[in-house]
Amino acid sequence: MSTTETQPLAHDAAGAPQASKFPLNLWYVAALASELKDKPIGRTLLGKPIVLFRTADGQPAALEDRCCHRALPLSHGTVEAHGVRCGYHGLMFDNKGQCIEVPGQAKIPTKAKVPAFHAKERDQIIWIWFGDADNAAPTCEPPEYEVHSNGKYLFEGDVYHYDAPYQLIHDNLLDLSHLGYVHLRTIGGNASIHMNAQMKVESDDSLVRVTRYMPDSEPPPTYIAAFPFKGRVDRWQEIEFCVTHLRIWTGAVDIGTDSLDDPDRGGFHMRGFHGVTPETETTSHYFWTMATNPVSSPQETLQKVVEQTIMTFDEDKVVIEAQYKNMVKIGNGPMVDIHVDVGANRARKIIEKLRNEVIS
Amino acid sequence: MSTTETQPLAHDAAGAPQASKFPLNLWYVAALASELKDKPIGRTLLGKPIVLFRTADGQPAALEDRCCHRALPLSHGTVEAHGVRCGYHGLMFDNKGQCIEVPGQAKIPTKAKVPAFHAKERDQIIWIWFGDADNAAPTCEPPEYEVHSNGKYLFEGDVYHYDAPYQLIHDNLLDLSHLGYVHLRTIGGNASIHMNAQMKVESDDSLVRVTRYMPDSEPPPTYIAAFPFKGRVDRWQEIEFCVTHLRIWTGAVDIGTDSLDDPDRGGFHMRGFHGVTPETETTSHYFWTMATNPVSSPQETLQKVVEQTIMTFDEDKVVIEAQYKNMVKIGNGPMVDIHVDVGANRARKIIEKLRNEVIS
Amino acid sequence: MSTTETQPLAHDAAGAPQASKFPLNLWYVAALASELKDKPIGRTLLGKPIVLFRTADGQPAALEDRCCHRALPLSHGTVEAHGVRCGYHGLMFDNKGQCIEVPGQAKIPTKAKVPAFHAKERDQIIWIWFGDADNAAPTCEPPEYEVHSNGKYLFEGDVYHYDAPYQLIHDNLLDLSHLGYVHLRTIGGNASIHMNAQMKVESDDSLVRVTRYMPDSEPPPTYIAAFPFKGRVDRWQEIEFCVTHLRIWTGAVDIGTDSLDDPDRGGFHMRGFHGVTPETETTSHYFWTMATNPVSSPQETLQKVVEQTIMTFDEDKVVIEAQYKNMVKIGNGPMVDIHVDVGANRARKIIEKLRNEVIS
Repeated sequence: MSTTETQPLAHDAAGAPQASKFPLNLWYVAALASELKDKPIGRTLLGKPIVLFRTADGQPAALEDRCCHRALPLSHGTVEAHGVRCGYHGLMFDNKGQCIEVPGQAKIPTKAKVPAFHAKERDQIIWIWFGDADNAAPTCEPPEYEVHSNGKYLFEGDVYHYDAPYQLIHDNLLDLSHLGYVHLRTIGGNASIHMNAQMKVESDDSLVRVTRYMPDSEPPPTYIAAFPFKGRVDRWQEIEFCVTHLRIWTGAVDIGTDSLDDPDRGGFHMRGFHGVTPETETTSHYFWTMATNPVSSPQETLQKVVEQTIMTFDEDKVVIEAQYKNMVKIGNGPMVDIHVDVGANRARKIIEKLRNEVIS
Repeated sequence: MSTTETQPLAHDAAGAPQASKFPLNLWYVAALASELKDKPIGRTLLGKPIVLFRTADGQPAALEDRCCHRALPLSHGTVEAHGVRCGYHGLMFDNKGQCIEVPGQAKIPTKAKVPAFHAKERDQIIWIWFGDADNAAPTCEPPEYEVHSNGKYLFEGDVYHYDAPYQLIHDNLLDLSHLGYVHLRTIGGNASIHMNAQMKVESDDSLVRVTRYMPDSEPPPTYIAAFPFKGRVDRWQEIEFCVTHLRIWTGAVDIGTDSLDDPDRGGFHMRGFHGVTPETETTSHYFWTMATNPVSSPQETLQKVVEQTIMTFDEDKVVIEAQYKNMVKIGNGPMVDIHVDVGANRARKIIEKLRNEVIS
Repeated sequence: MSTTETQPLAHDAAGAPQASKFPLNLWYVAALASELKDKPIGRTLLGKPIVLFRTADGQPAALEDRCCHRALPLSHGTVEAHGVRCGYHGLMFDNKGQCIEVPGQAKIPTKAKVPAFHAKERDQIIWIWFGDADNAAPTCEPPEYEVHSNGKYLFEGDVYHYDAPYQLIHDNLLDLSHLGYVHLRTIGGNASIHMNAQMKVESDDSLVRVTRYMPDSEPPPTYIAAFPFKGRVDRWQEIEFCVTHLRIWTGAVDIGTDSLDDPDRGGFHMRGFHGVTPETETTSHYFWTMATNPVSSPQETLQKVVEQTIMTFDEDKVVIEAQYKNMVKIGNGPMVDIHVDVGANRARKIIEKLRNEVIS
């Protein structure tokens, strides 16, 4: 059994802040599509203050959230057909960051522009590209997430702000054995079932897949509330870590009725999308949606599943923020690994490699 | 079109606090006279914690806000006829900072005294002198402000605390072109009227005067609420920057009825006094009064004008604090100047010169 | 009349945190017995985050408040018969800090343990031993406090958190002359009586005793509320400083009825226990109990005394925290001593000596 070094904090031993270093050349989640309507959104992503807005054609745009005149956040301004207008002296910027109007002044100063970022909407998620100097423009399309678009599922979502680094959220999502201790009220169920689940971990340079099967188990409260199970169930948990986001497909069928490794299995499904975007080295945005397949009363069932999901994610937030606060208070120390850490540790290796590529 | 360096923040690049350096040999506003009654006021001014109180003869006094015995703020104590008494062990100090009583002890220790500052009341404002080593005593009388005393106007005022450096408040007050974007609900009116106003800027070593005329314009909501204008108006804005405070005389007459540059013009007047006293390099006290000349129902009209003034100043506070927070977050960067910045930039030059004189 | 240097703050002149250095080889108060029931308590003591809990036999235990797996505070977990179980993945630790269960895993990793501290309950106080490298194990029993156990008194208590260093609380408790300025509403009474009390100060290497007699004085509000005094009283105050805690025995008899220096004197008694445990160099835990000897309506009288005690201690907290905030704001400066400081200054010398022994 090995020990793992605590993940680097944002402060070195002497208390001085380290330069932030995030995995780059990736699409990160900037917002859920449902958030971005007729008002600008100000949000710090990977340490950069960004204003998000939609132009008249509905396309998302992302600029540095600082007017080049007197530094007011552009997110305090208003969205107009051709761009975003500063709320102090009315300068207007288009989706490339070019100033296109200085009220009361005919000539627009040459230097009047703000940095722009590549933003795209796909499957109801607003993605933003963060590249290094050699990859300022995206080298690929944003990830697809057809669960939001294929019509088989209903979903809702929200954004949480975390006072904790993004990697602690990865750890939590990649190791669902905590369900039996943290989420007894909702999706947990018997602790020993989780701790003794059959687990398979696969990975490559940019992906970790953890599969857990819990055959012949008691359905937890959320499952019973949302689906007419007859009695005991066969449960599955499939977690896919993709650096900037995770996809978690969990569910259950009545015991013995379907093969758990068949993607067309029936029963009750909860499909979670989890966009984890660093705000800073020590704080994070957590964008989530939860999709389900109601067998009846669709809106009512969706609401039930979403309510229980919110309870569950609130519990995770309490644990993860307490964990981080304690790490800051006590300082870096060795961490003893146990059997459930395999997936999370592989994800950490991928992140570490990507972070090192940023300076090399 | 030039670019302006961001004003120096209170922290240098390495995050270490810089020594504070304020313009000296000036009278700053310490309080409005109406604030200083029978209780001491504790207030940090130019980085120095000060206790303000009135002695039995009604004269204001200002001492370091720290008992020389065990460092309790004297502002936690009580005011008596001959001075201020500490609320911990009862030591009493007169208006020169001399300890004049140690309860239970006959002999007063030689070292028992606290630093004193020069304070004076004039025209219902309490002024405090901050001088350099060569000018510890005032070299002049505090500024007069006869608007408070001449009986032509009614006024009220208040103190705001700002999480922003004093110079950002100067910028805001010297450039009223923001009215059309920030203060639409009150004193704003049509944005293009403000941006296209006739503007004149005059200045010398210690004063900047910005005059703006907006003939033939729509009266804004506050004006209509307080004065029986017949229709369109000729508006004026006269701003005088005096380093530690600004005087802003705005108003309007019915179109074509009076010459705007005649100090005896009629119509509706709003005369603002704005004392901007640094608390620290990054926070400020903003003392304001608003005087007006009601044509009828004087108290009711005054209340209307003051209510709208408060709404207006609350809007400014939101913008200026958001601006400063953004400057701290994003760091110093160039600022692109536009046509409205002339007055504010001259004021910055005056401040810069005075700050440099402090160490030279 | 001498001057005293301000106690060292937790930051040196350059703003860098100093290594904490507390008196060691002592029992400190960790909790009141009444606090520690079936849930773990997380509390930072002398800079160390500690989880306190009781094992099945009722004995207190104290461990580092950090699970060795992923650093969650163990105080977020649950207490079971044999130890405390982490609330994230269910690891269980006994009262020696040994991990005794990893759910879902047969073998417990060798390194799976957390540091343990010596904790003992005596006279309804939970004590914790902090020793240096040579004295990791206690070299003596925890202090007794028979007032809690002898049946002559009723008592209640509570814990206050202070944003101030522990030595400022010592100062306050060792110099009761402040009663006449800070506690007029409760136990104060006439200020000059306190300032002119007969005072005797005795001390050795580990103890300071201050005795103050105030014969022929007016009983203060709390005394009148709790005891049927006939008129004027003879009052005593006996303060014993024992480094980690103070015992303060105050009271009064009807004038001329009993000798004040007779421990068997009658009248009205208030016996305070004051455990002052540093949380950090700049923050403290203040554990107090107040015991009294009701002559009638025991619970009602106790409630009255406790209510007035709480008012009194709340007043102290306001003063001491304001004092510390001012010391941080203004920085270290000389403090002028007066006649009442003798006891407090001797206590400071004892602390200073013990702090210096830690590194020598």
